[in-house]
Amino acid sequence: MTSATVVLQRCAELDRFSASATGLERVYLSREHALANERVADWMRAAGLRTWQDAAGNQCARREGREPGLPALLLGSHLDTVPDAGSYDGMLGVVMAVAVCERLAERTDELPFALEVIGFGDEEGTRFGTALMASRAVAGTWDDDWWDLRDRDGITLHKAFLNFGLDPRQVRQAARRPDELVGYLEAHIEQGPYLEAEDQSVGYVSSIAGARRFRMSVIGEARHAGGTPYDRRRDALTAASEAIVAIERLARPSGCLATVGRIESTPGAVNVIPGRADFSLDLRAATDAARDAMWDAIAKEISDVCQRRQVRFEHHETHRAPAVACADWLQQAVLDGITAAGGTRPLGLWSPAGHDAMAVSAATDVAMLFVRCFDGISHHPAEHVREVDVAVGLDAFEAAVLAVAEAVEKRTLLDSARSGA
Amino acid sequence: MTSATVVLQRCAELDRFSASATGLERVYLSREHALANERVADWMRAAGLRTWQDAAGNQCARREGREPGLPALLLGSHLDTVPDAGSYDGMLGVVMAVAVCERLAERTDELPFALEVIGFGDEEGTRFGTALMASRAVAGTWDDDWWDLRDRDGITLHKAFLNFGLDPRQVRQAARRPDELVGYLEAHIEQGPYLEAEDQSVGYVSSIAGARRFRMSVIGEARHAGGTPYDRRRDALTAASEAIVAIERLARPSGCLATVGRIESTPGAVNVIPGRADFSLDLRAATDAARDAMWDAIAKEISDVCQRRQVRFEHHETHRAPAVACADWLQQAVLDGITAAGGTRPLGLWSPAGHDAMAVSAATDVAMLFVRCFDGISHHPAEHVREVDVAVGLDAFEAAVLAVAEAVEKRTLLDSARSGA
Repeated sequence: MTSATVVLQRCAELDRFSASATGLERVYLSREHALANERVADWMRAAGLRTWQDAAGNQCARREGREPGLPALLLGSHLDTVPDAGSYDGMLGVVMAVAVCERLAERTDELPFALEVIGFGDEEGTRFGTALMASRAVAGTWDDDWWDLRDRDGITLHKAFLNFGLDPRQVRQAARRPDELVGYLEAHIEQGPYLEAEDQSVGYVSSIAGARRFRMSVIGEARHAGGTPYDRRRDALTAASEAIVAIERLARPSGCLATVGRIESTPGAVNVIPGRADFSLDLRAATDAARDAMWDAIAKEISDVCQRRQVRFEHHETHRAPAVACADWLQQAVLDGITAAGGTRPLGLWSPAGHDAMAVSAATDVAMLFVRCFDGISHHPAEHVREVDVAVGLDAFEAAVLAVAEAVEKRTLLDSARSGA
Repeated sequence: MTSATVVLQRCAELDRFSASATGLERVYLSREHALANERVADWMRAAGLRTWQDAAGNQCARREGREPGLPALLLGSHLDTVPDAGSYDGMLGVVMAVAVCERLAERTDELPFALEVIGFGDEEGTRFGTALMASRAVAGTWDDDWWDLRDRDGITLHKAFLNFGLDPRQVRQAARRPDELVGYLEAHIEQGPYLEAEDQSVGYVSSIAGARRFRMSVIGEARHAGGTPYDRRRDALTAASEAIVAIERLARPSGCLATVGRIESTPGAVNVIPGRADFSLDLRAATDAARDAMWDAIAKEISDVCQRRQVRFEHHETHRAPAVACADWLQQAVLDGITAAGGTRPLGLWSPAGHDAMAVSAATDVAMLFVRCFDGISHHPAEHVREVDVAVGLDAFEAAVLAVAEAVEKRTLLDSARSGA
């Protein structure tokens, strides 16, 4: 039986596939991505699964249920990371999914569905700025506008596919039909402080907030830092700085989360007043309505700042995902799994962070199991999960799969009773 | 006689030696630097000067005065640029110096000094972050701590010297002894709005304000943008943004000029709260005392912001130059030159911008001639000078050299009268 110890060892082993010598960075369609896929495929095969890489670069595996060709219960998460990442965001869910398949190996041929595992190649959007591309390929919502996206080196997504050995024309073959799928379960670290605060190893997810992301630009005028008095300055960076402070001031009391993660000034010389500042905005809230109202308030405030400073404000939405509710029956299966693993008062949470489950929900029902992480820290090398929590998580995840099987059996019985009637 | 037309053509010709296909960027010890040196050397030779490249990569030239080996009056400016630069900042002064030598060609052997021209290789500090390195080599104030400075590609200054074909061990051979020099005159675009406001083609400089430059860092904690509530955020970029707004608020009413030209957030992902923000500060004022008091106020304010936000503030001074007064007798020569060129009420200005003259002042007396530029715009492709102003500038610069000659003759007569007494 694959233990929590092995799960954590495997997460640590994946750290080796990194573009950075000093930290973990593994982005979509990179050499590191290919190496991580290969290693995960080894573990999938050791767990008795048949493996393949799909047309979008996702690492996939399958073991048939009680008869071949049944719809699949999909278990998975992602293998790509942010820059200077922790070892668990995404990877833990993939490795736990493989472990659960291994633990269920002898019972898989009793299940009323096939078991599949998927390691998605792009959830974070680090390389091309657009998140969830790989899971949207699987969900059948690929967008051909993405082909011209460029990474920091100017390489288009189209070229990156070719470099990775993928045929861009075939990307739609990665899409799964709803009738091939029973549902999707994803285990993931919480990336928040609530399980820790409630002293719980695991929790179930009620809904996933949809983020909106923007690329924002302030355009002023580059001038000499020495020769330009204040009344002649149209400094793009001071305007952007005022905007960033205003974003925090607006979002903080609202319950929304607004984050500026990237900023760049142009020309970027120590003695030149910036003529341009580009920065990102990531915006989340418990409901789409609250999130959209916050964006309107932010856009209004920045426009006012820029008008007063005689600089121009431009913005472009790069990502928009609606909030996704986890399916009641799958939420219940995860809750039953947590109870079976000894949980006495399973905690339901909404997720401010986005997850592959959001994208997959376009094709099938989804639910998630959250595992407690240290101090809510994520997207940082200090990201940490305790072995004891992973052990509870494995028990709960395994039990949740069996609970899904029970629910599917019950539904099948009802269906045949109905069609028999 | 080299005309203003030729001067402007030559400035335009130097635009070709650029690292950027879309704009002008020519940094110290680059391939473009070597090509610009070669082209300027062509013009120097055409003006009847003997040329060499010195041990710090500066392009030099000399024509003897009425006897060989006399101390030299040095005329010059710089050939390096900021990113996305204009065509005149630095280059105009070098090209005008060559033109003045050409115009004086037939009279040089009457002069009580040799005429030298120098095109400095590093004034802006674009590549290694430290300004005036090349002119400090000439002034004999080279600092061996610079050898380990690195450019954006990680190349050290030491390596860049070798790549350029220079021997780092020989750099002190670029230094000029005070007894080899009569003084230094530099023509330069004003980079400010005052000549235009007073409807003057040219002006003389009374003093050059010394800049202080700092590399500043705010260190917080990188965390997931979705999972981290505001009360757990230690966002380095919002703190830096508040600091940048505060810098402007403090400096604007004070008469000081404070500019943040560069900023970078780390890790720099759209969905990660920045754990670190690095930014630059360039600080100038009419006096060193006012400038230093402003720095104290800024440092205090940023420390307060960072303490309140529970992030760490670090700063490192990368450049510090005291204000430099232009020598009275050379100021007078430039003023006489302007009058000879038809100026009726020559305007004296202090320069908030730094210039090679600041560095050279460690070795010899300095003075400067400012040429009006359009709307005070500099460090920008829209940097522009009018041909009519360059024509007045050439007349004034030439006349200033002759005024220096008169002053030197007078001093020599006085000296010999004294030693005869």
